[in-house]
Amino acid sequence: MAETLRAVADGGTLDARMLDIGRRARAAARSLALAPPETKNAALRAAAAALRASAETILAANAADVADAIARGTAASFVDRLTLDPKRLEAIASALEDVAGLSDPVGRVLATWTRPNGLVFERVATPLGVIGVIFESRPNVTADAGALCLKSGNAAILRAGSESFRTSTEITEALRAGLRAAGLPDDALQLVPTRDRAAVGMMLSGLDGAVDVIVPRGGKGLVARVQAEARVPVFAHLEGIVHVYVDKAADLAMALTVVRNAKLRRTGICGAAETLLVDRACAATHLKPLVTMLLDAGCAVRGDDETCAVDARVTPATEEDWSTEYLDAIISVRVVAGVDEAIAHIERYGSHHTESILTEDAATAERFLNEVDSAIVLHNASTQFADGGEFGFGAEIGIATGRMHARGPVGVEQLTSFKYRVRGAGQTRP
Amino acid sequence: MAETLRAVADGGTLDARMLDIGRRARAAARSLALAPPETKNAALRAAAAALRASAETILAANAADVADAIARGTAASFVDRLTLDPKRLEAIASALEDVAGLSDPVGRVLATWTRPNGLVFERVATPLGVIGVIFESRPNVTADAGALCLKSGNAAILRAGSESFRTSTEITEALRAGLRAAGLPDDALQLVPTRDRAAVGMMLSGLDGAVDVIVPRGGKGLVARVQAEARVPVFAHLEGIVHVYVDKAADLAMALTVVRNAKLRRTGICGAAETLLVDRACAATHLKPLVTMLLDAGCAVRGDDETCAVDARVTPATEEDWSTEYLDAIISVRVVAGVDEAIAHIERYGSHHTESILTEDAATAERFLNEVDSAIVLHNASTQFADGGEFGFGAEIGIATGRMHARGPVGVEQLTSFKYRVRGAGQTRP
Repeated sequence: MAETLRAVADGGTLDARMLDIGRRARAAARSLALAPPETKNAALRAAAAALRASAETILAANAADVADAIARGTAASFVDRLTLDPKRLEAIASALEDVAGLSDPVGRVLATWTRPNGLVFERVATPLGVIGVIFESRPNVTADAGALCLKSGNAAILRAGSESFRTSTEITEALRAGLRAAGLPDDALQLVPTRDRAAVGMMLSGLDGAVDVIVPRGGKGLVARVQAEARVPVFAHLEGIVHVYVDKAADLAMALTVVRNAKLRRTGICGAAETLLVDRACAATHLKPLVTMLLDAGCAVRGDDETCAVDARVTPATEEDWSTEYLDAIISVRVVAGVDEAIAHIERYGSHHTESILTEDAATAERFLNEVDSAIVLHNASTQFADGGEFGFGAEIGIATGRMHARGPVGVEQLTSFKYRVRGAGQTRP
Repeated sequence: MAETLRAVADGGTLDARMLDIGRRARAAARSLALAPPETKNAALRAAAAALRASAETILAANAADVADAIARGTAASFVDRLTLDPKRLEAIASALEDVAGLSDPVGRVLATWTRPNGLVFERVATPLGVIGVIFESRPNVTADAGALCLKSGNAAILRAGSESFRTSTEITEALRAGLRAAGLPDDALQLVPTRDRAAVGMMLSGLDGAVDVIVPRGGKGLVARVQAEARVPVFAHLEGIVHVYVDKAADLAMALTVVRNAKLRRTGICGAAETLLVDRACAATHLKPLVTMLLDAGCAVRGDDETCAVDARVTPATEEDWSTEYLDAIISVRVVAGVDEAIAHIERYGSHHTESILTEDAATAERFLNEVDSAIVLHNASTQFADGGEFGFGAEIGIATGRMHARGPVGVEQLTSFKYRVRGAGQTRP
């Protein structure tokens, strides 16, 4: 860290150094935007090779990060997310190759039409420009986010969590080597070269117009700060208060399977269900089996009065429970008077992330899919499909719940903008 | 004005009143988002009828606005933009009916695909939410912007210039009557009920999350303030420093026609050309005819040394000219060494709005269309086509040069977001 701070000092004040990073990124973005698909893919494959070739260096840097984290008494789950081993490193390298294999999102013709005057219009996908990524512990984000930005023709400025700083520095070096090997400017991928937290605030200010969008990857505290302070657009979700609504026309066997998967497959991801809403019209047949299944599977259940009545192990839910993202084996359960009350509950307490309806009634399903204002709405499927890979996007840089530009899983296509190309034969406007 | 301020006072502080407007807009946005196309179109047609029925009231309010403006010694061009007469009012009413005739942008299925596990994905257009529109003199913006927001299922908060306040108030009332007639909440269209400039700052703060995007309509001063202060996304362009590049392979007759139209058809619009770049390889044949044509048509020409040499009426351009949006019968002219130098000039001095290349060489045209990073790039056509109507969008709320969400002419489609609908048969994630 002392070396890093000296390096920053050598480059001038932190402020000047960050602005310089922004200028370099902006300049490199133009080369990236014009790079042909095969050049970008060559850079990704060369980066994978460089990662494998630098395995020893990267794992040594990671061991130092991990040792520091343990010495500080960091929680075991955090240390696990931070730790790399040869297998995890190989997964990072091979993920770079997977991104190289995705179809190129830049240059796609999104629409084309001809006007009566003969002008031919095309709307064509272009890169966004410079993407700032701010992340916490997982060092793989360095490679994953860098690869998605590169593939979509964008320059990236990465800000790693201080705990993974050494590891992220070495991974970034490998990706930059990949860029150079393909003849692309390595300034297209820069890691903020200091643990100084003031650098985050500078990124959020947009570095004098050099940052087009910020993607935070981490806990609610980080996302809340970014959303509150950023002067540039943010692709993020603050939390996933995800609902499953079991309608009176739901198939019980399907409901048992899907609710279990939605809540318990993995409890720590943003697509995990947090609240189960059950239609009063089927509560007599469906509520007890669902609650028992969850309790027996080791999930704590916090319910309204009707839910508490079906099993002594249910504890009463408080008002706060309806707006709590547990990210744990806990679920809140409420009985509602049909799909209208379910939708009203979701609009009041939800986070516009992901919700699912289970029903065999097509009309009720359509109402739910139309009226619930969430990025992802599902019918008869688990909410844990809220993931760019499951959508077929290949990979995602995150999930957004805002309505501007990107919404839902943010894959390489959502990291593009567009422009209009108009071809004429000398037309003038009358 | 006194009445209005009393009304604001009656409703509490300006701050409280503005937050209340935001809450009402957010609540109304949900009804608008779910309104079927025929209901929204009925509201637009009823609004047109109400405008016609209220013609006397509206023209009286406008006469009072105009009298005030003249008494303040306002410039004649400003007074002209402010003034309504029966013909202009009819044009406003009939524009509402035109918007009703556009196809509905909400609910469009933007993409659909099926995954190997049988899940069927749909990306479907949804409204953005609440749009804040801040505009200056032209009272027709009240109706035009309100209509586009309504058509796209969004609620709108309008802030009129103080000079058109009475006129905008009456036009807003007619549109609100249209909403009520169709059974929609009139809170979906609200005019900020005060001339107090502090209200603009509050809108730019987002009204506690109630405003999703701001669209400024007016001069550079307004747009610059909005871009600098807004804490929510902005759809806008600060200026249109628009270029026409005449390549060595340009047809001279076409160049004379297109350059004349691009510069002089209307000089005050953002798509008017401001700089002409001429390839040195054709300067001997093309430069003098182009410059003479412009001068003879009454356009002042500010040129580099080579341009000054062709006609004594050309005055020398300064460095500042290359980044000046004249919005007048003035053009800057520079000789460049081919398409590379033309692109470099545009990237350095341009505003990413609209640029055109004139050439018969298809490969050179493609390079220009690909490499110029502007919202609109044209080949062999006038830059004055930079207009939503000319694009076939029916109408536009403005032109955006940012890369987020909307770019180029912002029509009803660009006023939508999207969500994912996923239909399954009980799928769970492995």
